[in-house]
Amino acid sequence: MGIWFTENQTRDLSLSFRLGKTLRRERTPYQDLAVVETLQYGRMLVLDGAVQTTEKDEFVYHEMITHVPLFAHPAPKRVLVVGGGDGGAIREILKHPTVEEAVLAEIDERVIAAAREFLPGISQGLSDPRAKIMVGDGIEHVRQARGVYDVIIVDSTDPIGPAVGLFAREFYQSVFEALKEDGLFVAQTESPFLNADLIKGVYGNIASVFPLTRLYLAVVPTYPSGLWSFTVGSKKYAPTEPVRQPPEGFTSRYYTPAIHRSAFVLPRFVEELIAAGPAKDGEASV
Amino acid sequence: MGIWFTENQTRDLSLSFRLGKTLRRERTPYQDLAVVETLQYGRMLVLDGAVQTTEKDEFVYHEMITHVPLFAHPAPKRVLVVGGGDGGAIREILKHPTVEEAVLAEIDERVIAAAREFLPGISQGLSDPRAKIMVGDGIEHVRQARGVYDVIIVDSTDPIGPAVGLFAREFYQSVFEALKEDGLFVAQTESPFLNADLIKGVYGNIASVFPLTRLYLAVVPTYPSGLWSFTVGSKKYAPTEPVRQPPEGFTSRYYTPAIHRSAFVLPRFVEELIAAGPAKDGEASV
Repeated sequence: MGIWFTENQTRDLSLSFRLGKTLRRERTPYQDLAVVETLQYGRMLVLDGAVQTTEKDEFVYHEMITHVPLFAHPAPKRVLVVGGGDGGAIREILKHPTVEEAVLAEIDERVIAAAREFLPGISQGLSDPRAKIMVGDGIEHVRQARGVYDVIIVDSTDPIGPAVGLFAREFYQSVFEALKEDGLFVAQTESPFLNADLIKGVYGNIASVFPLTRLYLAVVPTYPSGLWSFTVGSKKYAPTEPVRQPPEGFTSRYYTPAIHRSAFVLPRFVEELIAAGPAKDGEASV
Repeated sequence: MGIWFTENQTRDLSLSFRLGKTLRRERTPYQDLAVVETLQYGRMLVLDGAVQTTEKDEFVYHEMITHVPLFAHPAPKRVLVVGGGDGGAIREILKHPTVEEAVLAEIDERVIAAAREFLPGISQGLSDPRAKIMVGDGIEHVRQARGVYDVIIVDSTDPIGPAVGLFAREFYQSVFEALKEDGLFVAQTESPFLNADLIKGVYGNIASVFPLTRLYLAVVPTYPSGLWSFTVGSKKYAPTEPVRQPPEGFTSRYYTPAIHRSAFVLPRFVEELIAAGPAKDGEASV
């Protein structure tokens, strides 16, 4: 007998993982939370039925959502992660010796607790003295911050449930104001194969707020289609070029300075998706 | 009620597609063949339970397995495809006006017949006067050819069943001899996330035969993990650089000259996989 977890990636597509133990299953105030052992990808965090991260492939997502914006900044000191309660983004941010404070604004304390207990390799950075954990509404935190962050990383779930507001133009305007005058931000923006309208809409929203907007890609096997997009809004620095060398002792499994640059080289259909401009009113609203 | 096709990608991982009609299902002399309609990716060719190609994402694989080696060659005239009975590689090869003859060596005539009948957008090139279809053993064809091809493309199924011999060192030696003195070849070489030992073994085998060996990547959503590798063996030309501009009227949805170059920029874990050298005897033999 086999026990499997199946993620319904779309109405017509699903990915299934053979399971070992279920380590946690609970209904939090915000979502359905599970931590399960998969035989293929190690332990996995699942929120509302959607794969968030696994021990075996988390390095791709966490390295690429952090090191691209951070190495594009000459000296990032204060960095904010919105969402990202598993702690993986914080772990990577703390590899930058310029960083003095890495703030986590996670709405669901139970995600942090589950990651601390069952995903220590991912959550380890949360215990670092430079990490500051704020349990609460990231949107509200960003709205109240003014010119204080060098880099903001929106490490959200899919644009349903608690994360809907993180894909709205108003939020990007708040992010702009929360950044210092040379700050930049990045958001995970789903799959170009499966979420083309969302990407068009978000790209247009960010481009209407930030002078520089760029999209880059990485491959996360446990995310729908494998091809994942990140969209950067920047006030000053071109995000496409790393401006610092990796510091002494820096380790990574996906990111390299060459990968940084090549991640912005887009397949033609993705280029065209963005060039087409934002979706019409209502078409890709979230 | 929903009807689904599930591909067992590994023992512990599977990808499932909601189906419309099943258009063909037969046992050929070589394999189990099916053409089904999926709601997510359009029509799909399945051999021995493994997804071969779908209407919606075939462009990635077919463009990348052909245009990278072809644009690395200054004037490819005779091109051989081993396998590839769906015709997608031939369609792309014929976009190069230098090509005088595109030979298809497919062992299973039923694959060609199914593609002609149900996948006309993919198989259309097979009717071109420059396409020469040879139904038979590709290994034997390559063994008998001497210095006649500019480019050879090994568009095989997974290294089980009829394709096993296409991953062996002896075959790469035959490929070397079938190429002209400045020829190059490429083989699809599976996923770095799920087939690391295979890639190590094949890379070592090719590097033991060809003076230049390089690996590049593309994202094919319906293949296991999404991240797919291609390994090039070249006698003379560096495969990493396109040496010709796309000809007038050239169309593509994934390939661009910039994508050509960036496809060879590897995530660190893939760099390390290759740098580690070939697997020990027996470890990754196929």
